[in-house]
Amino acid sequence: MRLFAFAASLRRESFNRKLLRLAVQAAERAGASVDHADFREFDMPLYDGDVEVASGIPAGAQRLRERFLGADAFMIATPEYNHSIPGTLKNAIDWVSRAYPAAWRGKPGLLLSASPSVVGGNRGASAARAPLEVTGAILHPDVFSLATADKAFDEAGALVDAKMAARLDKVVAGFVAFAKMLAKPT
Amino acid sequence: MRLFAFAASLRRESFNRKLLRLAVQAAERAGASVDHADFREFDMPLYDGDVEVASGIPAGAQRLRERFLGADAFMIATPEYNHSIPGTLKNAIDWVSRAYPAAWRGKPGLLLSASPSVVGGNRGASAARAPLEVTGAILHPDVFSLATADKAFDEAGALVDAKMAARLDKVVAGFVAFAKMLAKPT
Amino acid sequence: MRLFAFAASLRRESFNRKLLRLAVQAAERAGASVDHADFREFDMPLYDGDVEVASGIPAGAQRLRERFLGADAFMIATPEYNHSIPGTLKNAIDWVSRAYPAAWRGKPGLLLSASPSVVGGNRGASAARAPLEVTGAILHPDVFSLATADKAFDEAGALVDAKMAARLDKVVAGFVAFAKMLAKPT
Amino acid sequence: MRLFAFAASLRRESFNRKLLRLAVQAAERAGASVDHADFREFDMPLYDGDVEVASGIPAGAQRLRERFLGADAFMIATPEYNHSIPGTLKNAIDWVSRAYPAAWRGKPGLLLSASPSVVGGNRGASAARAPLEVTGAILHPDVFSLATADKAFDEAGALVDAKMAARLDKVVAGFVAFAKMLAKPT
Repeated sequence: MRLFAFAASLRRESFNRKLLRLAVQAAERAGASVDHADFREFDMPLYDGDVEVASGIPAGAQRLRERFLGADAFMIATPEYNHSIPGTLKNAIDWVSRAYPAAWRGKPGLLLSASPSVVGGNRGASAARAPLEVTGAILHPDVFSLATADKAFDEAGALVDAKMAARLDKVVAGFVAFAKMLAKPT
Repeated sequence: MRLFAFAASLRRESFNRKLLRLAVQAAERAGASVDHADFREFDMPLYDGDVEVASGIPAGAQRLRERFLGADAFMIATPEYNHSIPGTLKNAIDWVSRAYPAAWRGKPGLLLSASPSVVGGNRGASAARAPLEVTGAILHPDVFSLATADKAFDEAGALVDAKMAARLDKVVAGFVAFAKMLAKPT
Repeated sequence: MRLFAFAASLRRESFNRKLLRLAVQAAERAGASVDHADFREFDMPLYDGDVEVASGIPAGAQRLRERFLGADAFMIATPEYNHSIPGTLKNAIDWVSRAYPAAWRGKPGLLLSASPSVVGGNRGASAARAPLEVTGAILHPDVFSLATADKAFDEAGALVDAKMAARLDKVVAGFVAFAKMLAKPT
Repeated sequence: MRLFAFAASLRRESFNRKLLRLAVQAAERAGASVDHADFREFDMPLYDGDVEVASGIPAGAQRLRERFLGADAFMIATPEYNHSIPGTLKNAIDWVSRAYPAAWRGKPGLLLSASPSVVGGNRGASAARAPLEVTGAILHPDVFSLATADKAFDEAGALVDAKMAARLDKVVAGFVAFAKMLAKPT
């Protein structure tokens, strides 16, 4: 089971990068082979239909698309901006989805979210569901939401709260099992 | 009553640009003075917290912010991408909202949407409500949605369907009256 | 300025009833005259198109409709059930909206939400926006959300946290001023 | 593969009942064994926390719960009321979810929607996703939406449009295959 994973933040010290790192380790413990990408690898312009006609889907979006195509399933840790999906992530979805069918069609996905807010980043992950589902992703019902993320990690990058760490393990292992059931037999 | 208006599409022949042009004319007939912008004027990078720390809000987002600040109310015609807000528009909201309070706080807004689809672009405009409202915009309940937009305009750019044209006039005039009631007396 | 207000919970000791009581007092201090209803007054069946054809809109929904019609603006405190609007409130909206135009069309509204959860009940109030807005309500962008509501009230029913109490006052006073601006001159 | 299916409308001549009937036949052709219920079998009051404390989950909600528990997967055809989930369906979800875990936790589900409107009932089905997913349902990404449903059926109850009929077959067969992959081996 090959899993593609990235945090939808360009910021280097992003809480979502830290959370994703732990989710990747949990997925590996659950037996997945993980392609762990950096969102900065997929540099792309803002979507412009004229650019698309003139020069096609930009290289960064093509690279992102190929990484999805090479995987059986995916995990995205996403910030919440203004109670919704980050424009950066939505722009990437918009570009990649211009090649039909979308690279994630029929692939299981898990959304995670870290936020310094006390209410977490659930609404960002929630707003990401519609565009991913309408283009065919099979999103796991669980969303792992980490609130007060500015106080959640120790210096080694682990979660301070052991119960939260156990919950992350459980959610990710549940997702890996789910993705295996949906993976086409080879 | 000064109204700031733009179509959230970079494409030059965008249906939303065409629709916005008609909405601007309707607003002027209703007595508004309109600052009609081209979304291409607000060139900006994808949101990156490290860029923000290093060099602040980029010039294009600053220009967009100032145009909102100079107006009493606003109209945005937005495409729908993948049943949601375009990444381009969300990215602009994300950047501009980094200066508190958001430039549109307390300002009445009208959303419009044109789409070649038979069901129109309502879901794009609908997904734009949450980020604008949580940052303080007072969105008018009406949304003008133009379906099958590829067949909706004649060569002069007017709406072929007279009933649809009358409805646009009515919605925009209703919005201008609404915005006048909320404008602070000077 | 006549304000109609109710908490969308049938439970007698509902946190939303307690929160609404404080919001009503704040509205009165801001100069509004408030019609403070109990949701139990509007007993009605689940929506059934056959019942509507046979016997029209039921009496409880008619009473609810008349209370909206008699007011210039409204406040609803709503629980969140399963990350969405309560079925009870949605059912009331469904029945009342069968008389066109909806009784709240063109009327300013404020949503509030209390929840024992640490993340509050924002998603319930958020899910209530679409059905109210599409039927013409002018919802204020602010939503007052009270988290950990099981610990938020003292024995007299006041908010324990003085900062939260001040915020409630400010949000409600802001809404009353907003509603006054939109009230038709008589 | 046992499939539980119902249309979330109490109206006897409901378009969603007609659509569901065809979906049930398609599921049977795809090899599923279907428990086809009538929403009227699950008569229940509006949710009231005091009623729950005094007398538990009402009999109609208990019956609905047991039907979900007895199935491997489910299909719901739902109307759209006021751009959102019907209060009737949400009320049923609210009651049934009071028994933990929700009866549909871990079970694959397909949503369908019929509407006389030209834009279909997608927003009703879309608003049903959040409460079902947060309580653990695994919703298939496809939603079958039937627009202009008042003209869609012939006298025998079949779809007039052969392409639409083929699409329904394809969506339902895809869902049945999906549900089989997720069914626990016995």
